[in-house]
Amino acid sequence: MQNRFAARRDRLIATLREKQLDAFLVTNFTNVTYLTGFSGDDSWLLVSDGQVRMISDSRYTEQLREECPDLSCEIRNAGVDIIDSLKTTLGEFGFSGRVALGVEAGSMTLCEAERIREKLGTAELIPEPDQIERLREIKDEQEIQAIRESLACAMDGFKRIREQMKPGWTEVDIRNNLEYEMRKCGADDRGFPTIAASGFRAALPHAVPTPDHHVGEAELFLIDWGAKKNFYISDLTRVLITTDKPSDLLREVYQTVLDAQKKAIAAIRPGVMAKDVDAMARNHIADAGYGDAFGHGLGHGLGLLVHDRGSFRPGVTTLLQPGMVLTVEPGIYLPGWGGVRIEDDILVTESGCEVLSAGFPKEFDEMFL
Amino acid sequence: MQNRFAARRDRLIATLREKQLDAFLVTNFTNVTYLTGFSGDDSWLLVSDGQVRMISDSRYTEQLREECPDLSCEIRNAGVDIIDSLKTTLGEFGFSGRVALGVEAGSMTLCEAERIREKLGTAELIPEPDQIERLREIKDEQEIQAIRESLACAMDGFKRIREQMKPGWTEVDIRNNLEYEMRKCGADDRGFPTIAASGFRAALPHAVPTPDHHVGEAELFLIDWGAKKNFYISDLTRVLITTDKPSDLLREVYQTVLDAQKKAIAAIRPGVMAKDVDAMARNHIADAGYGDAFGHGLGHGLGLLVHDRGSFRPGVTTLLQPGMVLTVEPGIYLPGWGGVRIEDDILVTESGCEVLSAGFPKEFDEMFL
Repeated sequence: MQNRFAARRDRLIATLREKQLDAFLVTNFTNVTYLTGFSGDDSWLLVSDGQVRMISDSRYTEQLREECPDLSCEIRNAGVDIIDSLKTTLGEFGFSGRVALGVEAGSMTLCEAERIREKLGTAELIPEPDQIERLREIKDEQEIQAIRESLACAMDGFKRIREQMKPGWTEVDIRNNLEYEMRKCGADDRGFPTIAASGFRAALPHAVPTPDHHVGEAELFLIDWGAKKNFYISDLTRVLITTDKPSDLLREVYQTVLDAQKKAIAAIRPGVMAKDVDAMARNHIADAGYGDAFGHGLGHGLGLLVHDRGSFRPGVTTLLQPGMVLTVEPGIYLPGWGGVRIEDDILVTESGCEVLSAGFPKEFDEMFL
Repeated sequence: MQNRFAARRDRLIATLREKQLDAFLVTNFTNVTYLTGFSGDDSWLLVSDGQVRMISDSRYTEQLREECPDLSCEIRNAGVDIIDSLKTTLGEFGFSGRVALGVEAGSMTLCEAERIREKLGTAELIPEPDQIERLREIKDEQEIQAIRESLACAMDGFKRIREQMKPGWTEVDIRNNLEYEMRKCGADDRGFPTIAASGFRAALPHAVPTPDHHVGEAELFLIDWGAKKNFYISDLTRVLITTDKPSDLLREVYQTVLDAQKKAIAAIRPGVMAKDVDAMARNHIADAGYGDAFGHGLGHGLGLLVHDRGSFRPGVTTLLQPGMVLTVEPGIYLPGWGGVRIEDDILVTESGCEVLSAGFPKEFDEMFL
């Protein structure tokens, strides 16, 4: 059986033919991981039709043997320039004259490109902004499984925090303990810096947790968090109700966001345009009179990065395909009062979609501290 | 009194004159933070001789008011391209025809450069690989203070871990608890992913902690960790002796590394070449017969990044200057057995140097668990 990484590389090789590239140079470390399973950095992958080589250095010899046993490697010693190794490899691949080399223009820096051009006079660098990101948009079985496991860590960690949490805990306490508990539940790491925002601070789009605000000082507490497990990220948001007597406003805002989220999720299936899913939630919120209070897109792709390619936004005409994983996270933010956002991670399936975080409490009555 | 960020920008403006640039476009978010104190991202800074403007978006309006009250800002709404905002700003700065625009070629991507060239036909992008990184090499008082505070969190967290640690704790337990304790000691975050390696794994240059190896299974346990506090990173390494009866080999290797480190530190003062500091440690280790077992540089610059510009390495002819902060971290690695590395953070002063982590235990007899 061909391994999953070789299968991913084959999809890249197919695009080489389409684009008449001699070879593709993968310099973005996330994409190197995607195509090989290698977890280190400072390593590039050269792919041509028929040959693949990892260009790395002697610090990684052992790790490459463990993580990518089937991969051919060009290992340089400390002090040798990676571009000299690239040159050697191109020669061994049989490219002696002009070579049309696809490069990752969305992450390659001007300095890197300049140095490659100087040292590889015969290489024509063909900018390919997002070739591998496009491949990554459709997750394979192993990737979906990794996201499920990442979600399990995130959900378990949150459950533990809900049990421990008391009035007086600050935003920083919640962040610190949640990230710690996720790891105790098996996460390799947090997926991204946790947002923990009390009351009015939940209306700030990029609230960094502070030690100055605490659970119970307002009627709501917003947490946006996720885990990383086997390289894959999960991403959830819940709002806890931190009073026994929530206001009518909180009740109305919460229910509006939740209904908007459910409507959007119900619309997800292959062939639907991303913008139409966004519109399901956006129109619901606008009809309730909160149109101006939902200022961001409905969701984003999820995978090796917390913001992977793909999004539910106005104007995005991408057609949904089975294997895409995206967040659905509508919100209503009222400056000075607070904000409610509810976020789950959704897999597009052959027949519709699966909420990967299904069953994780989000009804109003389930959110009391 | 001029604030520290304005003082930093003035140093950049002085280089504009030298290089005959009309303006400098700062796109690297770390450098934007350095020059403004702004902690968000997705924002660029345009600096000319006489004018400075932050180009950001409406998510950050509130945060910019708090963090950079004196800074002029161009705030765009969602959906407006940052390059259109840049174009507007250049116009308002009075550049209507050709403009020589310094850009950060070490971090700007090919795609970004291409989009800027397309939209700003009259802008000539002048690649400046490391202009601001050079400024960042010399720390001012506030930066040194932030590194001191970051170090205090790292050292306090480690002390707590030493008190809790028992045989049976895995590498992952140590990492998880140390990162958690540093935050309880006031750190905003870890400075970088903690290395925690038992026995032979300490010889792997990039050991990622595993749940499969534990304290007490070997005679040593290496921890390389640091905190982040007010954006600044600390970076320390200690080796704990996890047996009552350390081997003669461990004793010899440990003492060799420690003596090499002390010799190198004693050589640090303004005007000395970086490579000569490296040589002090390297020669000591070679004379002891372990020359081949020390394969990396002696140290690196430290600041907003864990690997800031500057290094102690063979061949580096940089002259040390007051205000530089670097790590000194010699090591001896014996595959199959283990490794010893001892790392402290050093400030170059007017008259010599200061070990910022002075007094933190590192003598052999102090390292027993």
